[in-house]
Amino acid sequence: MEEAEIIERVLEAGIRLGGVVALGAGDDAAVLRVDGSIVLSTDVQVQDVHFRLDWLAPEEIGARAAAAALSDLAAMGAEATALLLTLVGRDGETVERVGRGASAFARSLSVPLIGGDISSGPLLAVDVVAVGRLPAGWHPWMRSGARDGDRLWVTGRLGGPRRALDALLDGTPVDPEIRTRFAAPMPRLAEAAALRGADFDVHAAIDVSDGLLLDAGRVARASELRLDLDAAAVPRMDRVGPSEALRSGEEYELLLALPEGSDPTAVLAPTGTEVACIGRFEAGEGVWLDGVRTPPSGFDHFGSRA
Amino acid sequence: MEEAEIIERVLEAGIRLGGVVALGAGDDAAVLRVDGSIVLSTDVQVQDVHFRLDWLAPEEIGARAAAAALSDLAAMGAEATALLLTLVGRDGETVERVGRGASAFARSLSVPLIGGDISSGPLLAVDVVAVGRLPAGWHPWMRSGARDGDRLWVTGRLGGPRRALDALLDGTPVDPEIRTRFAAPMPRLAEAAALRGADFDVHAAIDVSDGLLLDAGRVARASELRLDLDAAAVPRMDRVGPSEALRSGEEYELLLALPEGSDPTAVLAPTGTEVACIGRFEAGEGVWLDGVRTPPSGFDHFGSRA
Repeated sequence: MEEAEIIERVLEAGIRLGGVVALGAGDDAAVLRVDGSIVLSTDVQVQDVHFRLDWLAPEEIGARAAAAALSDLAAMGAEATALLLTLVGRDGETVERVGRGASAFARSLSVPLIGGDISSGPLLAVDVVAVGRLPAGWHPWMRSGARDGDRLWVTGRLGGPRRALDALLDGTPVDPEIRTRFAAPMPRLAEAAALRGADFDVHAAIDVSDGLLLDAGRVARASELRLDLDAAAVPRMDRVGPSEALRSGEEYELLLALPEGSDPTAVLAPTGTEVACIGRFEAGEGVWLDGVRTPPSGFDHFGSRA
Repeated sequence: MEEAEIIERVLEAGIRLGGVVALGAGDDAAVLRVDGSIVLSTDVQVQDVHFRLDWLAPEEIGARAAAAALSDLAAMGAEATALLLTLVGRDGETVERVGRGASAFARSLSVPLIGGDISSGPLLAVDVVAVGRLPAGWHPWMRSGARDGDRLWVTGRLGGPRRALDALLDGTPVDPEIRTRFAAPMPRLAEAAALRGADFDVHAAIDVSDGLLLDAGRVARASELRLDLDAAAVPRMDRVGPSEALRSGEEYELLLALPEGSDPTAVLAPTGTEVACIGRFEAGEGVWLDGVRTPPSGFDHFGSRA
């Protein structure tokens, strides 16, 4: 299979041109007409680091990488506008299937694929650039925006990806629902859009990519506040323990710092996504779990687990 | 070395915030305020595919990847606004040096690094996203814009990267000037800006990334025209033969389709970059070299050399 053919098939699986796209793949670069601000995020997934080929179908690898990049847009409160896709791999067929997976997943969310790059390489890697927009007057949800007295809310039920990963590593059977949470995560774009229409402001947000404890700790640190977490309040999937739920990464659920007295349940009801209050920000520092200060916990690519 | 430390050092080497940047690395995504259109291009470079570690210093690998991505912006006639950088590698020190190389190179062109991603992986890879802008009223230079009667012009002197690559592959000595063309290419952003101020329009443009014959052929095909090339007119580096100059890739020189009678020499003089007329577009199809139709020639990642 030739490179041009792979690119053609990947593009076929997606939307070639969306409303804001002036020019798509095929030229040296893609051009987007924009009013307001654009939001850019990249997410790379590497074989044997983020996934193994015997764990996931190539299409799932692509869709998962697209979901991870789009999740960063949701965490900024942005709308998804377009994707660019860089694919590296040894055999053209697998590379094409990964690309088609990403492209079809983006299409399912009405997000066009507008460009990217492709290269041979000794192992599979996929790098997704998600392009979003913030219409005029919208401010991005930053990590640093939480205020004293804000409550921390989380969407969904946690622990599935970690439980699936442990089972895959151990070679034990994986419950299908648990596997889906690992293999086919959904970026919370619809939830972010619903929250944009709420009568309260989102003060800060982040998506759970490296584990609740670590990601919530990032919000507390950026906002220069102490965060008190109620471990028992963290919604968990069936058969998932509290510690797993707190440390499970690649969840792509949203953590939201909301003003005291604001309840996002009704706003999120149309999306079908649960939401729970799991903590409180106040003056001070660190993440406190049921009253005990906890060190951050997560994965570091070039260090030990800290 | 830890991931956060690598990111910090890579950011130190670059510009953290530029004029148009509302928010830089450190949050889930970068935010840019834009008026007009944005231009997006990605370029991935993979160890043992695009480079070998014993050929180039890590800083050169990074700078070269940034140059390749920025070259795509020049080929669209866009201004460079920002870079995002995805780094994959085995050891943190090398990854940091690649990142610093890209970041410092972008800084030398006043382009801020605004985000990216980082991952461990069994080999080195760098994926650069170049973000440019087209101020209101500017149209991108597309491959499809050449017209019957247009002349094809090329910047610089070709053949250096191919000659350097052949010497590196053969283990023979490389002339320093030739090595520089391979190891430290310059995107033609200043030249594109100068051409924007000319009293003639650029009808079509592309950068020479896969070889003059192949890239010029892409313009001819996209514009549905025949291109007649004058091989002897193609400017070559010293000791480079005509065939090498026609097939040398990773040149990052600009190919420009200009109206008959337009001469860009004076416009480009302040940049110090030479420019030469090397061909003519007319009704028909294919690339004709000194009157003989030639097949395209270039590198295909998943096929044979076509």
